[in-house]
Amino acid sequence: MNARFFPEVAPLKYAGPTSRDTFVYRWYDKNRVVLGKRMEDHLRFAVAYWHSFTWPGGDPFGGETFLRPWMHGSDEMELARAKAEVAFELFRVLDVPFFAFHDRDIAPEGRSLKESNANVRAIADVFAKKMETEKVRLLWGTANLFSNRRFMAGAATNPDPEVFAYAAAQVKNVLEVTHELGGENYVLWGGREGYETLLNTSLPRELDQMGRFLNLVVEHKYKIGFKGTILIEPKPQEPTKHQYDFDVGTVYGLLCRAGLEKEVKVNIEANHATLAGHSFEHEIAMAAALGIFGSIDMNKGDAQSGWDTDQFPTNVEDTALAFYEILKAGGYTTGGTNFDAKIRRQSIEPEDLVLAHAAAIDVCARALLIAADMFEDGALRKAVDARYARWDESENKAMLAPGASLEAIAARVEAQRLDPQPRSGRQERFEALVGSYLR
Amino acid sequence: MNARFFPEVAPLKYAGPTSRDTFVYRWYDKNRVVLGKRMEDHLRFAVAYWHSFTWPGGDPFGGETFLRPWMHGSDEMELARAKAEVAFELFRVLDVPFFAFHDRDIAPEGRSLKESNANVRAIADVFAKKMETEKVRLLWGTANLFSNRRFMAGAATNPDPEVFAYAAAQVKNVLEVTHELGGENYVLWGGREGYETLLNTSLPRELDQMGRFLNLVVEHKYKIGFKGTILIEPKPQEPTKHQYDFDVGTVYGLLCRAGLEKEVKVNIEANHATLAGHSFEHEIAMAAALGIFGSIDMNKGDAQSGWDTDQFPTNVEDTALAFYEILKAGGYTTGGTNFDAKIRRQSIEPEDLVLAHAAAIDVCARALLIAADMFEDGALRKAVDARYARWDESENKAMLAPGASLEAIAARVEAQRLDPQPRSGRQERFEALVGSYLR
Amino acid sequence: MNARFFPEVAPLKYAGPTSRDTFVYRWYDKNRVVLGKRMEDHLRFAVAYWHSFTWPGGDPFGGETFLRPWMHGSDEMELARAKAEVAFELFRVLDVPFFAFHDRDIAPEGRSLKESNANVRAIADVFAKKMETEKVRLLWGTANLFSNRRFMAGAATNPDPEVFAYAAAQVKNVLEVTHELGGENYVLWGGREGYETLLNTSLPRELDQMGRFLNLVVEHKYKIGFKGTILIEPKPQEPTKHQYDFDVGTVYGLLCRAGLEKEVKVNIEANHATLAGHSFEHEIAMAAALGIFGSIDMNKGDAQSGWDTDQFPTNVEDTALAFYEILKAGGYTTGGTNFDAKIRRQSIEPEDLVLAHAAAIDVCARALLIAADMFEDGALRKAVDARYARWDESENKAMLAPGASLEAIAARVEAQRLDPQPRSGRQERFEALVGSYLR
Amino acid sequence: MNARFFPEVAPLKYAGPTSRDTFVYRWYDKNRVVLGKRMEDHLRFAVAYWHSFTWPGGDPFGGETFLRPWMHGSDEMELARAKAEVAFELFRVLDVPFFAFHDRDIAPEGRSLKESNANVRAIADVFAKKMETEKVRLLWGTANLFSNRRFMAGAATNPDPEVFAYAAAQVKNVLEVTHELGGENYVLWGGREGYETLLNTSLPRELDQMGRFLNLVVEHKYKIGFKGTILIEPKPQEPTKHQYDFDVGTVYGLLCRAGLEKEVKVNIEANHATLAGHSFEHEIAMAAALGIFGSIDMNKGDAQSGWDTDQFPTNVEDTALAFYEILKAGGYTTGGTNFDAKIRRQSIEPEDLVLAHAAAIDVCARALLIAADMFEDGALRKAVDARYARWDESENKAMLAPGASLEAIAARVEAQRLDPQPRSGRQERFEALVGSYLR
Repeated sequence: MNARFFPEVAPLKYAGPTSRDTFVYRWYDKNRVVLGKRMEDHLRFAVAYWHSFTWPGGDPFGGETFLRPWMHGSDEMELARAKAEVAFELFRVLDVPFFAFHDRDIAPEGRSLKESNANVRAIADVFAKKMETEKVRLLWGTANLFSNRRFMAGAATNPDPEVFAYAAAQVKNVLEVTHELGGENYVLWGGREGYETLLNTSLPRELDQMGRFLNLVVEHKYKIGFKGTILIEPKPQEPTKHQYDFDVGTVYGLLCRAGLEKEVKVNIEANHATLAGHSFEHEIAMAAALGIFGSIDMNKGDAQSGWDTDQFPTNVEDTALAFYEILKAGGYTTGGTNFDAKIRRQSIEPEDLVLAHAAAIDVCARALLIAADMFEDGALRKAVDARYARWDESENKAMLAPGASLEAIAARVEAQRLDPQPRSGRQERFEALVGSYLR
Repeated sequence: MNARFFPEVAPLKYAGPTSRDTFVYRWYDKNRVVLGKRMEDHLRFAVAYWHSFTWPGGDPFGGETFLRPWMHGSDEMELARAKAEVAFELFRVLDVPFFAFHDRDIAPEGRSLKESNANVRAIADVFAKKMETEKVRLLWGTANLFSNRRFMAGAATNPDPEVFAYAAAQVKNVLEVTHELGGENYVLWGGREGYETLLNTSLPRELDQMGRFLNLVVEHKYKIGFKGTILIEPKPQEPTKHQYDFDVGTVYGLLCRAGLEKEVKVNIEANHATLAGHSFEHEIAMAAALGIFGSIDMNKGDAQSGWDTDQFPTNVEDTALAFYEILKAGGYTTGGTNFDAKIRRQSIEPEDLVLAHAAAIDVCARALLIAADMFEDGALRKAVDARYARWDESENKAMLAPGASLEAIAARVEAQRLDPQPRSGRQERFEALVGSYLR
Repeated sequence: MNARFFPEVAPLKYAGPTSRDTFVYRWYDKNRVVLGKRMEDHLRFAVAYWHSFTWPGGDPFGGETFLRPWMHGSDEMELARAKAEVAFELFRVLDVPFFAFHDRDIAPEGRSLKESNANVRAIADVFAKKMETEKVRLLWGTANLFSNRRFMAGAATNPDPEVFAYAAAQVKNVLEVTHELGGENYVLWGGREGYETLLNTSLPRELDQMGRFLNLVVEHKYKIGFKGTILIEPKPQEPTKHQYDFDVGTVYGLLCRAGLEKEVKVNIEANHATLAGHSFEHEIAMAAALGIFGSIDMNKGDAQSGWDTDQFPTNVEDTALAFYEILKAGGYTTGGTNFDAKIRRQSIEPEDLVLAHAAAIDVCARALLIAADMFEDGALRKAVDARYARWDESENKAMLAPGASLEAIAARVEAQRLDPQPRSGRQERFEALVGSYLR
Repeated sequence: MNARFFPEVAPLKYAGPTSRDTFVYRWYDKNRVVLGKRMEDHLRFAVAYWHSFTWPGGDPFGGETFLRPWMHGSDEMELARAKAEVAFELFRVLDVPFFAFHDRDIAPEGRSLKESNANVRAIADVFAKKMETEKVRLLWGTANLFSNRRFMAGAATNPDPEVFAYAAAQVKNVLEVTHELGGENYVLWGGREGYETLLNTSLPRELDQMGRFLNLVVEHKYKIGFKGTILIEPKPQEPTKHQYDFDVGTVYGLLCRAGLEKEVKVNIEANHATLAGHSFEHEIAMAAALGIFGSIDMNKGDAQSGWDTDQFPTNVEDTALAFYEILKAGGYTTGGTNFDAKIRRQSIEPEDLVLAHAAAIDVCARALLIAADMFEDGALRKAVDARYARWDESENKAMLAPGASLEAIAARVEAQRLDPQPRSGRQERFEALVGSYLR
């Protein structure tokens, strides 16, 4: 483990779209200024610790394929440190500004929660030093409250209050570690906060537990002075049959119920969006409209598969639509573009991990350039504005204001003999316009 | 049109499960007392005017198959009256207590909204007399804000404010007609309140328009003294690519945003639930947990089809799970079981319409008996209560109460060396228990 | 109807990617030679008569939106001629080489089949003259065996043999008309060749009927000397609950069962492929591998909708993958790229019809250029070949040849102590390679 | 491991529907004669070794939950023997006549294939003795060609011919072991016979490899005198993105391509059918119509989940429709009802495994009784026959026979002025009829 794991040690550099080299960026030019901001600051890429360093390549029908050296050995803390070395090697090779982790990704579970927490802190200390050297920052931390069998029936929503307590104590530790590492966000992904069967479930109890848990986290954030954003990551199902954080709209309702719609935002994953029956850009636009847009997990699903495939993004056009919505939302504040994506289990060479990220970074960079063109050109925005323009007329605006009534509006319809004629929605023209920005 | 349309004039009677007759009920015995209430009062069946009397049997690949006599003629109001005759004939034959309609189902569109509204009122007068004679009541009325081409881009959420105005005036009329006919609810189904493409859509504007429209309706309800419930009917999509009232969780969030979560409830349709990625019973349970359960549209989708097939329910076991959740929610108040179901377009005989409803009524009645057994027996409830029992212990309850903190909980975990062990979720036993009630 | 329907009379010309004009092609340059063939001859575009000229803009929740002048009048044959004028006006404006039609698209149904057939022939005569003038050819003809209520339970697979007879007589007429018009293919789309419920269906009877019907068609093709290809168009469902021509793999099996796997090929529609759970390129590749690739219906579905949305293609990257498979299959022989796509029902301006086709033609042209680069460059093919290279070694090739046996192979495994080690599938690198051709 | 694993040692007995005991059968009365055959001989239940004894309870988001004693220890063959003890204990407790296994379920992988094969044979010897004592038989054996990383890119369809060879040698061993144990079938489930991405795949090569592999297996069957049936198990995808054995229709086509449609049949799994977009009963009916029905894997999917959940069947009505198709197909010959179902990972008590099987056995037994009533009563069959009755008239039958032509049929249509009128498909009545058999 002393040697480098990845074959190319030099950080990938921008070489332009026509370069024929393999270990370069063709579109990601981090210092290029786009809409007044460096690409790096727009995109805020993060590598996900779990998929890249903790997943051995297994699926429900087969086990490990990767045979990573840091997964085979007897001293678990030693392996965790070796893993951290490789992780930071990849961050350096990719030259990305951020990473993200679950507590259990980075350090082994101990014989007690106290020991587990200590393990996490020990590796966090390793991180702290490396973050200094490598100039990589923490986009977010989170607690893994779903892998251990104690969480098989949920964490905050477990029928067993001791599991709730255990989860709370675990979150406290990771939230504090995240704070200490200067993390810009803290994410809650409720992997098993849902149910397998409604038959053995008390929905009112579990929703109350979840709301209270979330409030405890927010209160603790203020207590410790964490300035980052608390994010919930919606997903409709899997591993559970139903997950409470189904999608952005549902999460918004649950936040309202818990009185937290001003406190908590969402981390939207592309594949979770599509599994919930939405486009990725829809979920971003909806979150923006509801005031809860936070960050994204960038990946894609397979269009024909009904589970979370977490593939690296490949389609520039689809990705551009997502970034266009992010630009419309004002861009990220504390959020970023986290590659919650995994290489396919057949991609067993170390190079595959580098090249998959590099290709995805280029897809995003190219998509950002397209989205920025769309945004700057303004043709799309103007066409949309024109479509709603009559709403800015005073008589019409008044219908949405206090004092309007069905009676008054009905009287107007009759008085003016309103008989509104439909106007073309021009969908194909809008689509062609978007296509014209493709490069 | 003077003769009876349906072959059997006598209202269907209860004849018991072993009867071999065709035009009878085998399970629906309206005066039978179940859990202290007559079956009729539990189930509150309604026939949907649109599918049974207004739909000609077309689909996207073919036209009319039914050739109903009341759909062919030149005097549209005369045809509308003939249709009303047939409708009340079916209500009488089925001996159901309720029906439901859209304004455009019952009366033809006139040359102006004024004339259209007058047409609706004229048929409402016919209804008023027949409702007196036939002892059938109105479960709910609603406005069709999606069929006419003026609504092709939405009603409340239309980019054209005049369409908003037109829709408001139309709703005012139907809400008042519903009130005058003693309707127990008023439903808003936002057929085109959504978008075809995000590209030509301003989500913030449309969500604001929708919230304001809903408030106008609620205000008018109070103004006219309507005592019924205002209901929203969730549906994820179709005809639109995305509908804002996606599912119960999303609707709850939008109600909170509009400040209406105490004013408006949901009318949950089985097939809309499944198209949104939920089980029917999930949506009922979720609405109950959020305090917005109102009424149901009873039908089923085809398990392999991705659109709204609106089939009559056939599966007793699935239906029993829905009624169990309704019983747990305390049963209906103003709501009911509306058959928002249509016979297949190949079922072209008048008898098909009678027998489809009769079979579905029996499925529901049988399902209610099973659900009532489940509820009364209490074994399921006790098993669920036992699963959460420790949450009623004071130390655990305290974690959910004000004053709890992550710090205190974490201290407890350490002090008590909590190491919670998972307990079996016993899903298969719960399922077998449910199966044991099947009859 | 004397005036032009479309605002721009001049045929669209190639103006290059940077043109800012509206009514031009940016990528489709019909005389440009790609891989030794003119783009026009590669792509062989066809306009579908039904969506563009016969569909009024309705959907299951609303009626006509387009208000086409040729759909409103009392003399149906006059309207049919007016429609033909507009159709050929569009063909000329778009400068496409082909069109395609169902018999019922082009001419009204008469009071008898004889009269209906005569109507079809009368309009075919109109076509014959216009095809001469406009230099547009017929890609394929087909019979509409699904819209009239007589076909509600299928055509060839109807329980009523008289419907089978009627369908056979109708197909005979259209096949002959197609032959006379020089059609290059004849398509069978079994819109209602399937079932609504297995309960009322005899699967063995219906499969036999279908097989026999297909043989009758093939026999008649030879009798009349039609040189074109007979094509089946797979679709999994809709309007039926299950369609027998589910997908390419299923159709191949049914062709084998009918002894026609050398006689009949497939016309693959993109949206039908995705509804069946396949990618479009999969279905093309599978048809090529099975030796039955014929033609394509170019469109796309909505990724979140479970029905046939028949949208114009917009995604260059996805479309390029389809054309790459077509190039690998050797390109079209009698087939072509038929836009079985419809404008959205809100796209009510005549211009929308022109621009939707123009944009789609550009998407396909751009996709073809990318696919041609992929094909010509050969990097992808070489990488695939390398992956299978060891299969060309004699000892390995022998395992696939007659004479091989499990015994001999097992003996080799033991003798050579084979312990094959997995090699990276390099999916992300293949995907990145594809992405590098995007322009 | 000396003690019994399951709490109840006495085999479950039939106690009747009203019994309140837990460890009994309420519907499965193995000696009860139904349609002239004992229930046991109709249903031919089998327990699947893999889910019940080899799966530790993990899912993609969490590890082991069951903590089975036979999965923790150092001597793998000793553990395999302990597992066999428990397995036969369960077979005895459930009193089922059959079981089924993969080679890797029953014995550990050795350091070479030779050693692995020897391990399988060693445990097969254990089985042989226990099968004698316990009177349990082998429904089928199969080879696990998907779990080991060497198969990550497929077995027969691997780009590496050595993997093909390895797989062939492995199948040879299990086929022979199956033969020696008196297995009634041999199953091929092509878990990874498909592709992850079309980009790195040669479809023609892989289809040829698969066809040849299948022929090798059939040839070896004859060589060793195995009298059982070779079965293919269709599945559309998962773990692969696309599996070649997509569904029954596709498998039939591939069998035709390999010349094996008379030699190989299908083992149809309920959840695989639904994942492919079919109802379970459809796939059975289709296989029967194509002459390739063999056996079934009984389970169910979750209606809202897009992956293979392999749940125990719970819905009596759905299950009855499957058994009705099996009865129509003449019942099983060598096939049986294999519970390819797993308890939920939260069902961690040994009892859960017993009770899940017992409940499922009762669901199937009850379903069989209903299906037998439907079959014996004949009302459904008569109604279907009546629907097609006119096809038995000579003039109509002639249309399907050699000598018929489109010309002759068209002449008849004109001569007889055929104008077929649609008749009701009566779907709701058929559904109500089916419902009337529910008990």
